[in-house]
Amino acid sequence: MALRIVLSHPSHPGNIGAAARAVKTMGFADLVLVAPRHFPDADATAMAAGATDVLANARVFDTLEAALADCTLAAGFSARGRELSHPPMALREAAPELTAAAASGTLALVFGNETSGLSNAELALCQRFVSIPSNPAYGSLNLAAAVQVACYELATTSVAHATPAGGAGTAATGEDIAGLFTHLEASAVASGFLDPARPGRFMERMRRLFARSGLEREEVKLIRGLLAAFEERMRR
Amino acid sequence: MALRIVLSHPSHPGNIGAAARAVKTMGFADLVLVAPRHFPDADATAMAAGATDVLANARVFDTLEAALADCTLAAGFSARGRELSHPPMALREAAPELTAAAASGTLALVFGNETSGLSNAELALCQRFVSIPSNPAYGSLNLAAAVQVACYELATTSVAHATPAGGAGTAATGEDIAGLFTHLEASAVASGFLDPARPGRFMERMRRLFARSGLEREEVKLIRGLLAAFEERMRR
Repeated sequence: MALRIVLSHPSHPGNIGAAARAVKTMGFADLVLVAPRHFPDADATAMAAGATDVLANARVFDTLEAALADCTLAAGFSARGRELSHPPMALREAAPELTAAAASGTLALVFGNETSGLSNAELALCQRFVSIPSNPAYGSLNLAAAVQVACYELATTSVAHATPAGGAGTAATGEDIAGLFTHLEASAVASGFLDPARPGRFMERMRRLFARSGLEREEVKLIRGLLAAFEERMRR
Repeated sequence: MALRIVLSHPSHPGNIGAAARAVKTMGFADLVLVAPRHFPDADATAMAAGATDVLANARVFDTLEAALADCTLAAGFSARGRELSHPPMALREAAPELTAAAASGTLALVFGNETSGLSNAELALCQRFVSIPSNPAYGSLNLAAAVQVACYELATTSVAHATPAGGAGTAATGEDIAGLFTHLEASAVASGFLDPARPGRFMERMRRLFARSGLEREEVKLIRGLLAAFEERMRR
């Protein structure tokens, strides 16, 4: 999973260090800084704790454009919902697409200055706008806290949610999932539940539900096994 | 939603302040401290930024027992997976149950000392153990970062995953979900897919899958509608 965290114009070196720690705790390593006010800096090193390697490997660019040059998708984090050209997606909703992007290319998560956030010019370089839903009366996440939450969300979405009891399952492929939805739709029609002439939003709702959870191959197999059993009994 | 954040024996007042900020950004307010080393403290106030009200209202107790006295469920956060009497659940897996608990009573999320975490005696006062999945080589989240992630996860689970297209749905209740699983199991047995004498892990896998996604009432209704249609056709 190729995930880059880009901090554009960070003011406080302590935040850079704390962000490096957040990145590493979630299993990522690619930290990029655009025109940091102070870097390297003792405060950054102190706040990085055991993630000084991430800090030492952080690359610094003069412009956001240069920082994103080799990225296939850039998601800009913004709390300025209504002022944007299109509304940002909530982080959890965006996570499946972002995770998929990080699997096939390099995904950049872009965070702006602590006080002013991402400028319009910076947002214009991002193909997606993402927000972390927060208290309307006080939505001011610390920069490193926002990085922590974003990395947590993507790490959690990408591991297909292993449980301690079950161990990590293998994530279903796009083909597995397409097969599941085709099967589900066909059996819903066969049962009489879904009218192909007036399908409504049933399949859309099911896609949305399973997009939230992510699917493991074994789960797709179990659900399709159950659908096949229903079909078999209905034919009798 | 009654959610209490309990910091047991925090060493660094800056972390208390940063935790207060994290709590407030996610829309919560009930912060409780057990035997903090330094509190109140200027560092705590500085790190709280716009959340000094949360800090000012924070209650201090001598013991974790007293801090949890009026809670209906306490979830202890621990990274010590294998040493515990039973393995912790990953935060995302635990979130639906925790959210339900916070809807019907007061849920406490309990965090231990920065260095040593929760002691065995402290964990013994928690009915659930929860972990934030992290880098096996460096899982050291800052205390306030752990609080931020936990509050984010519960806030996000509780709003039933609104999509920009569909708007927020109403989260299914514990009763709705129990009804769904009972229905799913009965129809899987009726189809011949599930052998009640040898059920294997099918229902466990399904519970795990839907715990990850969370469920809206409308989704439960759609799935049960489909199951009813299968049952109806199988009876013919």
